[in-house]
Amino acid sequence: MAKDKLIGVDLGGTTIKFAILTDAGEIQQKWSIKTNIFDEGSHIVPDIIASINHHLDLYQLDRERVIGIGMGTPGTVNRETGTVTGAFNLNWKTEQPVKADIEAGTGLPLTLDNDANAAALGEAWKGAGNNDKDVSFVTLGTGVGGGLVANGQLIHGTAGAGGEVGHVVVEPNGYLCTCGNRGCLEQYASATGVVHLAQDFSEAYVGSSKLKQLISDGDEVTSKIVFDLAKDGDFLANEVVDKVAYYLGYATAAMSNILNPSAVVIGGGVAAAGEFLRARVEKNWQTFAFPTVRTSTRVKLAELGNDAGVIGAASLARA
Amino acid sequence: MAKDKLIGVDLGGTTIKFAILTDAGEIQQKWSIKTNIFDEGSHIVPDIIASINHHLDLYQLDRERVIGIGMGTPGTVNRETGTVTGAFNLNWKTEQPVKADIEAGTGLPLTLDNDANAAALGEAWKGAGNNDKDVSFVTLGTGVGGGLVANGQLIHGTAGAGGEVGHVVVEPNGYLCTCGNRGCLEQYASATGVVHLAQDFSEAYVGSSKLKQLISDGDEVTSKIVFDLAKDGDFLANEVVDKVAYYLGYATAAMSNILNPSAVVIGGGVAAAGEFLRARVEKNWQTFAFPTVRTSTRVKLAELGNDAGVIGAASLARA
Repeated sequence: MAKDKLIGVDLGGTTIKFAILTDAGEIQQKWSIKTNIFDEGSHIVPDIIASINHHLDLYQLDRERVIGIGMGTPGTVNRETGTVTGAFNLNWKTEQPVKADIEAGTGLPLTLDNDANAAALGEAWKGAGNNDKDVSFVTLGTGVGGGLVANGQLIHGTAGAGGEVGHVVVEPNGYLCTCGNRGCLEQYASATGVVHLAQDFSEAYVGSSKLKQLISDGDEVTSKIVFDLAKDGDFLANEVVDKVAYYLGYATAAMSNILNPSAVVIGGGVAAAGEFLRARVEKNWQTFAFPTVRTSTRVKLAELGNDAGVIGAASLARA
Repeated sequence: MAKDKLIGVDLGGTTIKFAILTDAGEIQQKWSIKTNIFDEGSHIVPDIIASINHHLDLYQLDRERVIGIGMGTPGTVNRETGTVTGAFNLNWKTEQPVKADIEAGTGLPLTLDNDANAAALGEAWKGAGNNDKDVSFVTLGTGVGGGLVANGQLIHGTAGAGGEVGHVVVEPNGYLCTCGNRGCLEQYASATGVVHLAQDFSEAYVGSSKLKQLISDGDEVTSKIVFDLAKDGDFLANEVVDKVAYYLGYATAAMSNILNPSAVVIGGGVAAAGEFLRARVEKNWQTFAFPTVRTSTRVKLAELGNDAGVIGAASLARA
């Protein structure tokens, strides 16, 4: 029987997303379950195994047709041993033998990588990357992550820290980062970074602004509120967005001069601001991009949304 | 007959270096000829062909044993067509069908890449890179070039501009670069960049300094003189070297956070300053490198000197 199906798993702290895809990357079935992080996350792997086995039966899909399972996970992945460490949002405090357990429980081969890399592969394959072999993906969420595809392969580097675009320093002696350094992109372009900038700019701003009002009143301010106010013309909010776009343009240009990808793809919650953000990032990026890069690399928005994770995970199983 | 020999060619504006190597990268024969750039560089390719044919005869090396020729060249290489454009130091004003001509003239397959990429492959294979599959090479000469190896392959990017580390912006609104942007690393860490910084620092410096004296007297100042004076304890020269090391540390750290290579290898004429420069670059690099990168990537000096080009060029023929 010809092997022509892939299974993608996108493991997150709240939900686990699954999909069955053709080997051409078309999603045929999609489902999800809640992530049970109780008992040190010990239910997670058994739940994944049970859910895959159940759905293979449900859809009467012969295991012989499955090329393999690919999975994106939080934490640090050891791709040689197939284990995961430091996935704190899953309550995984010790090294987890994820690959061995899932392969034993399903009878199918598993390929693991981290969630940002999986999403990058998804966008590179079926999203904004148009299946090109050189695509850089930056995701703006709680943190800023990166997944870099060059010559058709993910850049893992020697210790798995390849793609740490969120820790490129954009402001020497800037905001202190959780990594211990100062001025990392993550401190300016993540959801919390945007709010941090808004608070600092608000203190120094004396004009009239809805954003300043909210901050002065102690109301909750999110990055979405900052972008929405900027779109409505709030001056202070626009100053904040301009600064975020400056740092993003600067860091993605440095990355582009190093990798010259066909596309820099921006995704994640903060990128929900859409073209409003992309256009401003691109304007700054053009200032810092090498001329050949400026004409051959494009700054794009992610296209797959929540599906990037399962599609990219599935593509891991193709290799 | 087993194919077990490689031929490497390092084409430069002054000399053309050649080597015959084993397929394990050991140099067995080495020679060079002057580059004849007269008549729009039209003698260069015929000279290369004649020199290879002559030496194969001289050493009585059967062509059947040669896997292929690899060559590093100035200019922009189109790897699909095997042509070179824009090699101004060779007087090549039009597109040159280098691959077709050399293959026809020698009867051997030719693989072409640019000279910085060839040197990077050399250092990655037989030099400071220890044959690791993730090695980043930065060369500090008249300009600043880069050659980046990830997953065992050179990063060319979508239009061949991958590895333009010299055009990562390290000082927004800084010195105007030949590329049209401002503040590129090349303007601070190339031989001319070091002298430019020395001139600027000298104007603002009021203390006693041999370097300031030389500049004030209108004597010729080279980057070598700046480094030699710094080693001798000249205060102003040390200020200049510190600034160069800061920019190099900053840019190579950004590159390291993106690629997490096992080694950042620094070569080229300016790197002849040796450990004196390397140690200062590393100190700055540590400030900007992500913690996992700081412990897994090393900042090293190039080890092959002038041989990097022919060895790396030869390795191009292996693929």
